[in-house]
Amino acid sequence: MERVVRHFQEELEALQGRLLEMGGLAEERVRAAVEGLVTRNAATVDRVLYGDEPINRLHIEIDERSVKLLALHQPMAADLRAIVAAVKINTDLERVGDLAVNIAEAARRYVVHPPVKKLIDIPRMGGIAQAMLRDALDAFVRGDVALARQVLNADDQLDGLKTQIFRELLTYMLQDPSTVEPSLDLILVSRHLERIGDHATNVAEDVIFMVSAQDVRHGSST
Amino acid sequence: MERVVRHFQEELEALQGRLLEMGGLAEERVRAAVEGLVTRNAATVDRVLYGDEPINRLHIEIDERSVKLLALHQPMAADLRAIVAAVKINTDLERVGDLAVNIAEAARRYVVHPPVKKLIDIPRMGGIAQAMLRDALDAFVRGDVALARQVLNADDQLDGLKTQIFRELLTYMLQDPSTVEPSLDLILVSRHLERIGDHATNVAEDVIFMVSAQDVRHGSST
Repeated sequence: MERVVRHFQEELEALQGRLLEMGGLAEERVRAAVEGLVTRNAATVDRVLYGDEPINRLHIEIDERSVKLLALHQPMAADLRAIVAAVKINTDLERVGDLAVNIAEAARRYVVHPPVKKLIDIPRMGGIAQAMLRDALDAFVRGDVALARQVLNADDQLDGLKTQIFRELLTYMLQDPSTVEPSLDLILVSRHLERIGDHATNVAEDVIFMVSAQDVRHGSST
Repeated sequence: MERVVRHFQEELEALQGRLLEMGGLAEERVRAAVEGLVTRNAATVDRVLYGDEPINRLHIEIDERSVKLLALHQPMAADLRAIVAAVKINTDLERVGDLAVNIAEAARRYVVHPPVKKLIDIPRMGGIAQAMLRDALDAFVRGDVALARQVLNADDQLDGLKTQIFRELLTYMLQDPSTVEPSLDLILVSRHLERIGDHATNVAEDVIFMVSAQDVRHGSST
């Protein structure tokens, strides 16, 4: 029995390790997509556009590992919740990878036009979204509820920046129709970054649920 | 033992019933949000804006039922995959509910302005997205892989309509700056509807994975 238990813990750690690896890839792709947009570097943008294969492979592998772990070890209580959380977090990280591609697509269209403005708030949003992802995954591995709660709070900053970007670009578009197309792409990028923050929030909520067996989603925290 | 097995099947069916209920609510909210936008009916829009509580409650309940089912019955093989699929589908349906709220938010802003155009393609997108959701959930309950594959194919139609809507509205915005704000909201709505189709696609992929234990995601189908 002890042998089986040790084996389970090793497998669970391997699963968490793969999730962290996937999180690192997703974060890096968000960073590269925003950098490609800001520096107008086509090669960086293309690396994001055509580089989602490693994340997609990990997505499938993590699902398979989770199902196998549930089937072979029939874990209880905390271990069970950790694996269910892994399945959910896996979904969120895959979507973050997709959103990095969406940002790269917008960047590709954007760089065809003259710059609308110096980009300051968008890289700021990118930095916040990346930090939220990193913290949420750290919280998952450490079972750190306090850190997970910090991630939930950071989401308001993204929302504020998104609204600010929208208002500013709307002014440009109303004054000069030639800015409509590129401005639209910047608005889309700000929404993609906001959604990346939403996914980090989902991960943080799953961590709190996993650790405290208390559901903070939909304001049902007590 | 037979008693326990029957109990498990009953619980699994109850779980699937709750997921169907949630799917029905999500679909109805998408329908109402688009109707509110098209008919410019503030009451309909507000019902969507402030009515996400039932879905949020089901979201939590379905997660709890899934974890309990895994913990108490330690199911194997097909049953295990069905529950893991339920956890994933639950996440997708909750996001669909959020997207209905996003559509209602855009509708609320949109109706402040004079109509940009007669809305034809957006209700068409709404109809396709709803049908995809319905078919994906039917496929889940029946374990119907052929139906799930139909859902995957329908996604291209949404993508085509989204691009068409974008091009048309861009023309309006370039010609008449007063249409910029409402046009932006229509573009956002078309993207929300496209994402609802993406969630239906996710559900269909989970069904195929569940039934055939073969992963069609990321083009790895064989």
